[in-house]
Amino acid sequence: MAKLNDITLRDIDFAQWYTDVCMAADLIDYSSVKGSMIIRPYGYAIWENIQKVLDAEFKKTGHENVQMPMFIPETLLNVEKNHISGFAPEAAWVTMGGDTPLEERMCVRPTSEVLFCEHYKKIIKSYRDLPKLYNQWCTIVRWEKTTRPFLRSREILWQEGHTMHQTEQEAREETMKMFQIYEDFQRNYLALPVISGRKTEKEKFAGAEETYTIEAMMYDGVALQNGTSHYFGQGFAKAFGIEYLDSDNTLKAPYQTSWGVSTRMIGGLIMTHGDDHGLVVPPKIAPIHVMFIPIGTDEQVMEAIDTLQKALPSEVISKVDCSAKSPGFKFAEAEVKGIPLRVEVGSRDLQREIVTLVRRDTLEKIEVRLTDAASRILELLEEIQQNLYHKALTRRDSMLHFAKNHDEFVEISKNKPGFIKINWCGEMACEEQIKEETGLKSRCILLDEEADGICAFCGKDGKHKVYFGKQY
Amino acid sequence: MAKLNDITLRDIDFAQWYTDVCMAADLIDYSSVKGSMIIRPYGYAIWENIQKVLDAEFKKTGHENVQMPMFIPETLLNVEKNHISGFAPEAAWVTMGGDTPLEERMCVRPTSEVLFCEHYKKIIKSYRDLPKLYNQWCTIVRWEKTTRPFLRSREILWQEGHTMHQTEQEAREETMKMFQIYEDFQRNYLALPVISGRKTEKEKFAGAEETYTIEAMMYDGVALQNGTSHYFGQGFAKAFGIEYLDSDNTLKAPYQTSWGVSTRMIGGLIMTHGDDHGLVVPPKIAPIHVMFIPIGTDEQVMEAIDTLQKALPSEVISKVDCSAKSPGFKFAEAEVKGIPLRVEVGSRDLQREIVTLVRRDTLEKIEVRLTDAASRILELLEEIQQNLYHKALTRRDSMLHFAKNHDEFVEISKNKPGFIKINWCGEMACEEQIKEETGLKSRCILLDEEADGICAFCGKDGKHKVYFGKQY
Repeated sequence: MAKLNDITLRDIDFAQWYTDVCMAADLIDYSSVKGSMIIRPYGYAIWENIQKVLDAEFKKTGHENVQMPMFIPETLLNVEKNHISGFAPEAAWVTMGGDTPLEERMCVRPTSEVLFCEHYKKIIKSYRDLPKLYNQWCTIVRWEKTTRPFLRSREILWQEGHTMHQTEQEAREETMKMFQIYEDFQRNYLALPVISGRKTEKEKFAGAEETYTIEAMMYDGVALQNGTSHYFGQGFAKAFGIEYLDSDNTLKAPYQTSWGVSTRMIGGLIMTHGDDHGLVVPPKIAPIHVMFIPIGTDEQVMEAIDTLQKALPSEVISKVDCSAKSPGFKFAEAEVKGIPLRVEVGSRDLQREIVTLVRRDTLEKIEVRLTDAASRILELLEEIQQNLYHKALTRRDSMLHFAKNHDEFVEISKNKPGFIKINWCGEMACEEQIKEETGLKSRCILLDEEADGICAFCGKDGKHKVYFGKQY
Repeated sequence: MAKLNDITLRDIDFAQWYTDVCMAADLIDYSSVKGSMIIRPYGYAIWENIQKVLDAEFKKTGHENVQMPMFIPETLLNVEKNHISGFAPEAAWVTMGGDTPLEERMCVRPTSEVLFCEHYKKIIKSYRDLPKLYNQWCTIVRWEKTTRPFLRSREILWQEGHTMHQTEQEAREETMKMFQIYEDFQRNYLALPVISGRKTEKEKFAGAEETYTIEAMMYDGVALQNGTSHYFGQGFAKAFGIEYLDSDNTLKAPYQTSWGVSTRMIGGLIMTHGDDHGLVVPPKIAPIHVMFIPIGTDEQVMEAIDTLQKALPSEVISKVDCSAKSPGFKFAEAEVKGIPLRVEVGSRDLQREIVTLVRRDTLEKIEVRLTDAASRILELLEEIQQNLYHKALTRRDSMLHFAKNHDEFVEISKNKPGFIKINWCGEMACEEQIKEETGLKSRCILLDEEADGICAFCGKDGKHKVYFGKQY
């Protein structure tokens, strides 16, 4: 397969490198369906691992899965005005059923707030019915003009949580709880050193009061919005006329949240950890942890591999590449797929009672005694997970900048990739001006840092510390 | 909740009973999206259990999950002529993206053969690339005019396996292997005494050479086609120009299968096991196995429940109904949801060191010593699973008929619900005549019984033993 040599160098053309890795690692393929991708078995297995961890977290915190319709009639989408204006421009409209034009056209859901609201209106009658903590795993559609695998696709696999609460405080706590689950997951499993905070008025979700965001910085310094959690207040509830009888015998509107992450996170891990050899998958989310590669076909070699496989605990997924390809080709293939460890087992090494472990993150070769191999593999998987995070953290930190004033801000935006922190006035006009002058958008308002100076861009009073950056 | 009393009696109006149970057991709800249903948490949890078992079976037999696009451009759907004629009449067509009419309209996938074929054409080059054993969990859309929850819906949650093989034999074996997995699953988990066989030419899948079907008989004697496995031969492969270089250095078309089951199976279990009290869920697929209902709020009662819960193995999912409702109401609610066992725990009983177990299948009340309760619960769950199957089997067998000749056939079709077995000529014209005269369709050609007489309907030579029946 020539494709192993077909990966553009990362520092030469990052965008092409990204697409090359997606293809060479067998994550995706294209079809005649423009703007959509095929997620191939290896890519889908990563998504299944993501789902498994997150679904367990959601259930542990009391959430239940449901399935709403995938279509939204136009009048239903129209109920909340901010919401429709945000989503109508990229809606895919079904207008015909068989040969018959529909009486009312329906879009394929771009997100499901309105469907959940319509349902909640029916099933929430009393404070005893609250909270409702629902989640849905599904595909959504947004008719994007420019698409890239995982990052921006017409079809997106995701989960969307939609919850209703008796009090503002409880809904706010839910918003932050899910935000925290996302952040922890991305740090601990995807090894992404994310930056998190609140979106500005301009950047928040259409219809939300507040949006909290997880921002990951890619290898090229560009941001990937990698998950959001929204607090809606009573906006949708009032638009939909959702009311419950509270314990004080009065009718009230409940408080709402929604939150979602998608296959975009796979794009994030590729663009954070990948290198010129291809993909690098963090062990905690890897479909295959260890690839055993026999050198030669000696029975002794296969026996040693078999013994080693059996010595590994069941949570370590290992495979043996028994194909007819050359060892060199197999090494390259394990590398391009980003399998955390490969184990080379040859008869000459076995005479010395050793095998060679090769770390995907550093490409370091480590000879270990056969008897130590299993325990060393376990240690190395943990080390690789940590190392990927710290390597990404170091790189990210090297691309975090601070600008004191307008000139510095513009100067850095022109010359240095990454995020720029500034004191900022919080005004939408200023944010639009920043976009026009520098091409940067706000990433997030920091939650744990106060403004301590005037707005670096316009000179008005500083209200927040904010990161600005380019985005995918 | 008045709804517990709102279930129409099963023998009065079976169709209404079915809808009432779907609603009263909180399986589904309706929305403004006509023809689609909302699958509520309890219904979706049953689907998740189905997915868990089947997905493990698929993976154990070497299948990998993928995700294809959800849209099919019209030209792609048109490639295989039999296929398009089968699916075009019920396609939902997307014609607009945002404000822009699409250059080519696309339907939302009604099934994904053509998408898999297009992909396989790209990735299958050599016999070394075979077999390809892919599966996909997704939602499909068929624009049905008349819909019923789970049975016939515009949106269907399902899985579709699509595989490619080097030889006819291997593809035929795959077809039968998956057919067997479906049959075993429906018998052993859903407790459905299904009848299985091959579809006639008239009833087979559009584009398939052979279709194998799992036919379940509902309480009212009507058939539910509850899963199919198709052998395609090389038909699609040739239409799509899929070729691989075989080991003998010649180009060949691979042999193909597809197979699928859907949320329709949930409809099947409702209509097989449900009764006038509501749903009955077989323990092996139940989201909740045991509902503990405290009588009173004594600390002693709650402690006894806690001890009992801890004594149960982790695979037994139990819940405690601590709501403010009356015990009688809680009993009815556990019944309507079909929870296999409820355990009533009261302080007076505890003084005698007993608790009361109530079987959902028989509604029998069983007093057991507290110390025996955990082991008795385990035994009863097993007994209930077996009993549901055998009860359904007995009922099914009472509605299996045999007709020797035309008059008997027509007579039974008019007066007795169920399936009618006949010797049959195998001709499409005869089958169409049967439909016209009796309203019955063929269910399946039996695989293990030969014809032993002339066609009961038309008198020509008998070719097969076939079941005929009405269907959902």
